[in-house]
Amino acid sequence: MNVGERHFRTIWLAGDGRSVEIIDQRWLPHEFRVVTLKTVDEIATAIRDMWVRGAPLIGVTAAYGVAMHMLDDASDAALDNVWSHLHETRPTAINLRWALDEMARTLKPLPIEERAAAAYARAAEIADEDVELNRAIGRHGLTLIRQIAASKKPNEPVNILTHCNAGWLATVDYGTATAPIYLAAEEGIPVHVYVDETRPRNQGAQLTAWEMAGHGVPHTLVVDNAGGHLMQHGMVDMVIVGTDRTTAQGDVCNKIGTYLKALAARDNAIPFYVALPSPTIDWTVGDGVKEIPIEERSGDEVSLVWGKTAAGDVVQVRISPDATPAANPAFDVTPARLVTGLITERGVAEASAEGLKALFPERA
Amino acid sequence: MNVGERHFRTIWLAGDGRSVEIIDQRWLPHEFRVVTLKTVDEIATAIRDMWVRGAPLIGVTAAYGVAMHMLDDASDAALDNVWSHLHETRPTAINLRWALDEMARTLKPLPIEERAAAAYARAAEIADEDVELNRAIGRHGLTLIRQIAASKKPNEPVNILTHCNAGWLATVDYGTATAPIYLAAEEGIPVHVYVDETRPRNQGAQLTAWEMAGHGVPHTLVVDNAGGHLMQHGMVDMVIVGTDRTTAQGDVCNKIGTYLKALAARDNAIPFYVALPSPTIDWTVGDGVKEIPIEERSGDEVSLVWGKTAAGDVVQVRISPDATPAANPAFDVTPARLVTGLITERGVAEASAEGLKALFPERA
Repeated sequence: MNVGERHFRTIWLAGDGRSVEIIDQRWLPHEFRVVTLKTVDEIATAIRDMWVRGAPLIGVTAAYGVAMHMLDDASDAALDNVWSHLHETRPTAINLRWALDEMARTLKPLPIEERAAAAYARAAEIADEDVELNRAIGRHGLTLIRQIAASKKPNEPVNILTHCNAGWLATVDYGTATAPIYLAAEEGIPVHVYVDETRPRNQGAQLTAWEMAGHGVPHTLVVDNAGGHLMQHGMVDMVIVGTDRTTAQGDVCNKIGTYLKALAARDNAIPFYVALPSPTIDWTVGDGVKEIPIEERSGDEVSLVWGKTAAGDVVQVRISPDATPAANPAFDVTPARLVTGLITERGVAEASAEGLKALFPERA
Repeated sequence: MNVGERHFRTIWLAGDGRSVEIIDQRWLPHEFRVVTLKTVDEIATAIRDMWVRGAPLIGVTAAYGVAMHMLDDASDAALDNVWSHLHETRPTAINLRWALDEMARTLKPLPIEERAAAAYARAAEIADEDVELNRAIGRHGLTLIRQIAASKKPNEPVNILTHCNAGWLATVDYGTATAPIYLAAEEGIPVHVYVDETRPRNQGAQLTAWEMAGHGVPHTLVVDNAGGHLMQHGMVDMVIVGTDRTTAQGDVCNKIGTYLKALAARDNAIPFYVALPSPTIDWTVGDGVKEIPIEERSGDEVSLVWGKTAAGDVVQVRISPDATPAANPAFDVTPARLVTGLITERGVAEASAEGLKALFPERA
């Protein structure tokens, strides 16, 4: 999407045809830094230290890492080594593993001398496929936004609340939850986005708000506490969030706090949609609340907040007493009963086993 | 309550019998500073600039301000002047006005030479009455905690979630929502408190956590987003919050985000209690969602966060893009249907017009 006047993806091949350039997301929203990654070690660092984040983007970055390594050594042993090296950077990231497997599957059958070129080609395809997936999600979500816009007065904006960052920064372009918003904006539908701050890591305040500002989408930052009040007073027309994992019965595991917004949406009869690429559906899990283990992260993420001082330095400050421990569950599960629909690349599914099977009959 | 080994109120008469000492709450939780207020001008500054906050505490502080002024000039004109001077420091604070009216009502009938002594006596009484009111709320809430404790295994703590600071720092001692917790701790009932951070001003992280740490109550800081997840997983036995204003039908206006916790409590069949002194019941309002105007505060409270750097400096940092506007509704209204009970100084009322009238028949 746009950063001011110019269009960017989150990752692209550099002019040398070997390196990639990325947006170093650690500095957002305070600084927009593009860096060049020239070696597989630099790729590994960028993934591990979260210069790039978001499942699809991590996968694409890793795919380019494999390609870079193939230029130096395209042997089977090298392919195994780079798989292990990159996999251990974020061992629980499903997309990372998927992308590495996909590269190995593509390259292993090829003669060694063809592997490097094939690797760059497949990495570029994976990036393009992600963009297409998100555009497809966007088109289906756009239909929902159009319906709401049709019930509004001319120029009255459709107010959309989102939580965390399921935006283009988490993908190659468009994002998942944000794809319908960007397509609506492209189509000239007036939209306004309430951006949840998303404590404790503030991905809404730092990333989603930055995306919206850069692309010129009208938006307002609110604390996570505010959504219920906004919905009580008719200030939100729909909620669209992303998800890390959706169960076969339509329960949605997403950033902590999503469940509270779903409850408020239900209490105020506001549609609550979840945008997701179908690879994030976990067909092996039924009851998400009971079955999905929730990652407990460091309490320091709660007690320490990153921000920019008046002098322009980006620092961490402690907001709570030294003696106070903090708990930090990273995700929660929104039961399917609170979800109006799942916006996938194939269309909008009812959040139920039946709804998902109807769209993905090959899984039934 | 205790700050480490020593008991404190939030305000007390100094050794000179004229000045008062207060905890300067602007520096909490990073520094514990007690300051002496010697003049009515210092009292006005302390109220206006929020060295003291919380409706009951503001009222008591103002009462002592009137007393100080009476030492210099106890004329009717002086009484009128000090009323106006102090009233304008926080013109919307109901308790401030009440305390000033109460002082005027007490002093006006007296001979001028008796007014100063009577003013100090009445200010001390108002402080003591606040403590007694909170202890009475605490005793009624304690009964509820005892019931839950009785259903637990020995030494298994009662887990209580609270939002914002309705603690002793907002009153003279004990607090409202925290009074049952402190009494339970005094009685040896094992309690553990989940302290909501309470964005945007972080009163939970800064004040409630500090209170709990100081008094030795086991507690854990969580982001506002976490409560729903904790409740889904049986980690919360009850919720107790305070309120700024309760309507005649039992709707509860409290710090933004309270409504979301009430929704989660209802969805998980967890009791949701609101602790309140009866003077905060607004008998003129019925439907709180429709009728109570919600204060919209500066977006800077959302975009800028106070905290302590690694070097120990207390500074503000910006967490969002410069170009992103923020909205900051300060309160929300929890409908009575989501409230299990209202813990008042007279007992626990059902959150309904009938429930409140049964406890306060003089209002019926």
